[in-house]
Amino acid sequence: MAHTFRDRRRIEFYETDMAGIVHFSNFFRFMESTEHAFFRSLGLSLHRGGPEGMSGWARVGAECAFRRPLHYMDEVEIELVVREKKQTSLAYDFVFRRVADRDGPVAPDEVATGRLSVVHVTAANGGRMKAAGMPPDVARAIEVAPSA
Amino acid sequence: MAHTFRDRRRIEFYETDMAGIVHFSNFFRFMESTEHAFFRSLGLSLHRGGPEGMSGWARVGAECAFRRPLHYMDEVEIELVVREKKQTSLAYDFVFRRVADRDGPVAPDEVATGRLSVVHVTAANGGRMKAAGMPPDVARAIEVAPSA
Amino acid sequence: MAHTFRDRRRIEFYETDMAGIVHFSNFFRFMESTEHAFFRSLGLSLHRGGPEGMSGWARVGAECAFRRPLHYMDEVEIELVVREKKQTSLAYDFVFRRVADRDGPVAPDEVATGRLSVVHVTAANGGRMKAAGMPPDVARAIEVAPSA
Amino acid sequence: MAHTFRDRRRIEFYETDMAGIVHFSNFFRFMESTEHAFFRSLGLSLHRGGPEGMSGWARVGAECAFRRPLHYMDEVEIELVVREKKQTSLAYDFVFRRVADRDGPVAPDEVATGRLSVVHVTAANGGRMKAAGMPPDVARAIEVAPSA
Repeated sequence: MAHTFRDRRRIEFYETDMAGIVHFSNFFRFMESTEHAFFRSLGLSLHRGGPEGMSGWARVGAECAFRRPLHYMDEVEIELVVREKKQTSLAYDFVFRRVADRDGPVAPDEVATGRLSVVHVTAANGGRMKAAGMPPDVARAIEVAPSA
Repeated sequence: MAHTFRDRRRIEFYETDMAGIVHFSNFFRFMESTEHAFFRSLGLSLHRGGPEGMSGWARVGAECAFRRPLHYMDEVEIELVVREKKQTSLAYDFVFRRVADRDGPVAPDEVATGRLSVVHVTAANGGRMKAAGMPPDVARAIEVAPSA
Repeated sequence: MAHTFRDRRRIEFYETDMAGIVHFSNFFRFMESTEHAFFRSLGLSLHRGGPEGMSGWARVGAECAFRRPLHYMDEVEIELVVREKKQTSLAYDFVFRRVADRDGPVAPDEVATGRLSVVHVTAANGGRMKAAGMPPDVARAIEVAPSA
Repeated sequence: MAHTFRDRRRIEFYETDMAGIVHFSNFFRFMESTEHAFFRSLGLSLHRGGPEGMSGWARVGAECAFRRPLHYMDEVEIELVVREKKQTSLAYDFVFRRVADRDGPVAPDEVATGRLSVVHVTAANGGRMKAAGMPPDVARAIEVAPSA
């Protein structure tokens, strides 16, 4: 069972804004992207669809504290840690560390921390999403991280 | 029947990049947004979904020529003109004119021109999209603009 | 002095994701857009640049709780209330209310709540951003909302 | 000297729209991202800033033809080929090939082709961007591809 995952990405030009730094809304996309990579690393998918309807994970809460900005060409490591697991929901903590800038590796520097709370939902085609027990393969593969 | 439509929007901070101007990819979003507003002005929707499947308009071609940049708080007028109408497809030309900056109205200034080609598609739930004759209400409401 | 502001926007097609709803990262863009409109309503700008450097408002914290999804063509009212004002910082609460869907007005429905904490920063050209006392015109125009 | 470059990326959930496919505006972001990776592979940067001003590459034209959609978790190879090089400008052709879907590798499938035309610009701090001869290190490193 897995509870921690690390991903890396390089900042794209189109993720910056006129202040010359990564737009804060993108940190939420980066968290989600890491969540998807975590699932993928376990052979799982966060979103399943088909003729009979969809199964996915609705976001119910998201937060981020920003300490330092990220810039174009920075490389950032994003660490996901599972903090909560209930019948229909998961919550993750995230740490963003800058590990390189455009000139190469730098001493890892914590630039932001975040949290995402998600609920498993299903929907018939054209219907509303409803909370539903998480898929058994997810329940088997993911666990809460031991407290420090 | 309608063939021309004008929309206005103010540039958002999050639409800029570190060069201090609107990221070029957003001009394509602005074109699409104007297309949706054009349909809405006629009581139509570009995307229809339901228990039996979806009907929409797939983009098959998009282009834009950029003459001058747009900045945060600029107001831009976007003119759509229908240039082509076939059984399953439409093509629009667009002109972007800056009509105000952060200090107020300016003499209209053509900043970009674009073109969008779209094909009507339908898909059964979970199935592939296929080209299909456009909905009768769209065919009745939209026509090609007379040539100048 | 002002402490409350309301803005409205219609959901764009490009703001949705494959789950058929507004991607959660866009709620953070909507908050910021409302903040900018609040400043603009007071004759102020959140971002000032020039030959000598820039003055802006860095985001230090952002959070959102999502109750119900927003869909394509929904109209949403976003209410901003100033909750904190210090020498260099402001914090706002937000309430998102769906007020119309594609078929017309609906009974206002609270879909999400959020919070944004921002710090006034300045930077010389090419230099790092540093916290700095907020501009006098902002300090004169904005106040904390009276508690209920 | 270099004239061809290939990059790969996996489609993110947040790059999809309610039609269940990658939003067409993102293909333009993918082209630009590949252009940046091409420059980076040569030890170059597309955007340089500092106390005295900025140097960058303004987009003057962009187009894309879409043959087939991309979906969540697809992996796409993006090939850039330099087609034009003048004193101040470059033009690239792009081919997008789907090389994997969520279940693993697939026979490479051309899903889109594009073109980007860019002009080298410089700007003093707070000033307007003006076309300017491309930096010597770029002129030395990049050439037009031989015609087939």
